[in-house]
Amino acid sequence: MLAARSRNMARASADLAGGDDLAGRVLAGDKRAIAQAITKVESGELPGRDLLAKLYPFTGQAHVIGVTGSPGTGKSTLVAAMAQVYRSRGAKVGIVAVDPTSPFSGGAILGDRIRMRDLAGDPGVFIRSMASRGHLGGVAEATSDVVRVLDAAGCGVIIVETVGVGQSEVDIVRMAHTVVVVEAPGLGDDVQALKAGLMEVADILVVNKSDLPGADALVSTLQAATALAAGQARYAGHHQLEAAATTQPMDGSPGRRAVAEDSAESWRIPVKEAAALHRQGIEELVAAIDAHRRYLQASDLWRRRERSRVESDLATFVRQALFRRLMERLAAGEWEDLIEAVVNRQLDPHTAAEQVVEQQFGASE
Amino acid sequence: MLAARSRNMARASADLAGGDDLAGRVLAGDKRAIAQAITKVESGELPGRDLLAKLYPFTGQAHVIGVTGSPGTGKSTLVAAMAQVYRSRGAKVGIVAVDPTSPFSGGAILGDRIRMRDLAGDPGVFIRSMASRGHLGGVAEATSDVVRVLDAAGCGVIIVETVGVGQSEVDIVRMAHTVVVVEAPGLGDDVQALKAGLMEVADILVVNKSDLPGADALVSTLQAATALAAGQARYAGHHQLEAAATTQPMDGSPGRRAVAEDSAESWRIPVKEAAALHRQGIEELVAAIDAHRRYLQASDLWRRRERSRVESDLATFVRQALFRRLMERLAAGEWEDLIEAVVNRQLDPHTAAEQVVEQQFGASE
Repeated sequence: MLAARSRNMARASADLAGGDDLAGRVLAGDKRAIAQAITKVESGELPGRDLLAKLYPFTGQAHVIGVTGSPGTGKSTLVAAMAQVYRSRGAKVGIVAVDPTSPFSGGAILGDRIRMRDLAGDPGVFIRSMASRGHLGGVAEATSDVVRVLDAAGCGVIIVETVGVGQSEVDIVRMAHTVVVVEAPGLGDDVQALKAGLMEVADILVVNKSDLPGADALVSTLQAATALAAGQARYAGHHQLEAAATTQPMDGSPGRRAVAEDSAESWRIPVKEAAALHRQGIEELVAAIDAHRRYLQASDLWRRRERSRVESDLATFVRQALFRRLMERLAAGEWEDLIEAVVNRQLDPHTAAEQVVEQQFGASE
Repeated sequence: MLAARSRNMARASADLAGGDDLAGRVLAGDKRAIAQAITKVESGELPGRDLLAKLYPFTGQAHVIGVTGSPGTGKSTLVAAMAQVYRSRGAKVGIVAVDPTSPFSGGAILGDRIRMRDLAGDPGVFIRSMASRGHLGGVAEATSDVVRVLDAAGCGVIIVETVGVGQSEVDIVRMAHTVVVVEAPGLGDDVQALKAGLMEVADILVVNKSDLPGADALVSTLQAATALAAGQARYAGHHQLEAAATTQPMDGSPGRRAVAEDSAESWRIPVKEAAALHRQGIEELVAAIDAHRRYLQASDLWRRRERSRVESDLATFVRQALFRRLMERLAAGEWEDLIEAVVNRQLDPHTAAEQVVEQQFGASE
């Protein structure tokens, strides 16, 4: 592969430079350098953006897998078990936990704390928690940048774990190539209700804790639901971001209308069973994820999902760059005066926004 | 009050116009008009923005109360009980449910479905669910606009219910004047872990289901935690958005650095007990919310929170307006070509964003 060759060249040049170049050390897979790079990138400042620019040509190789589900489904244990399967194949694995309840984020401790620690000590595994709130520009953008760093660092598989509640969190998982939605028997009604918004983004369903009572009934229910969906003629793009590739959003938001992925062969959402705590069903789950990757690549959907993700990121960065430009041009106190006018109800915020934009960049056409 | 007088005048002029003016009918509190207005506003299109401009001078009267907590804490029942207390005082109440698990959103049905229905039939109560995902521009902005419509419609109290997980959801509740965080005994560890991010935004803590075992222990734990916090010299602004009023964000995000609210008298977070299903403890909770409002108004924090919210909204609308302007100016196919260049790794997305902005609006200063 061309990218692999470029990566080797970059590693070589990093070696020549004495290894003190952060981008070079990231490309070489140095765990400390990766951690430093992520911290730099998360700040959203210029040095982070410059670093991403250097790393970007080496990205696009990783299979990004989103794993999501309600609290109590044991998805962190599942992620750890999946990572071990990928490691046994020799792949480097990145884990990004956007989930305050995850043990990866220092959340609730599950039964297999020791195995988690084994994972963290493995030089071929990089774990990053995005649990802390207040990322500048939002956690979705920050996650996207972190995935890019891990991709450049040679992680062939990047697992993004989200708690599966909340708009940003669903948006994040939606940007993965393959979305695994985790369910489990025996959860309360309130928790079960959380899953409503998740089914629509699933590429693969997995019933974890399959050794517990109620697992078979849950599997049957989910199989019936997916059979119903398969009865419809096509695998109409449930990944709403797909649409961004074909529509030009004029409203300042990433394009999100759902369109039928009409070039795609039908994908029937499989329902898998697993007992992650006992390492059961994990190989089968990973095989289903592999099948989904082959499906995406054969049907051109892989590239279309990349394109959607790029458009969404690009729109975000353009809005940030535009806002910075505007702020540079405003006279001292002008922004504060505008806020004051809106607080005092002399202007409404939409009109105020249009006015300041028109004043700096000219009238709308 | 001046605003009340203006509202009456607007109502009178709406009557003169035969009531076919949507803004006038909203100001008159017409429930169907409010529903229409919200739908218009949620679209994010020009007619919605024009409508908001008309309504805006009549806003700023409502006490916006955020209620948040993990699934299973019974917060929807609590919100319903709170609404009944406010109704008994004659206040008009708006309820905005940003929570797919809420019965207000057609989620899980709790024991008191009938009372919820009573609430929905009350002409002085307006309930809106924001559970459907995919609002253009994000659910936070859409919620902000919906709150403004309800405010203009004369709701003296607007309760925003969020599930308390997820970045957007915490941001939403943070924009309320008063944030009530709901806890309950007997929830699983996984669900309990969700609350970690919530404590920091609480103005008032309430232990719901206080009749269940474990409630007293939970109250003691929370009291100990708040006592610890009160031991610190000041009520340092846990509402991070407060900072937006004093900082000029240059990075394209709303200002979010926490600053000490040094002009504020100390507010000690009260820990209340309630059993919402049995309508116990609700009057006391509402009294605590009233006390918080008086505290905000006496200490100028009310105005500062308004100002922070305005700055955050303004920054969002400015970014949207700038992006629209840029898209208008691009030649046909230019945006698609840029995406293609990034997908092909000829350009990284940050550099691509800077390039297109510079080309249209000139170099950075």
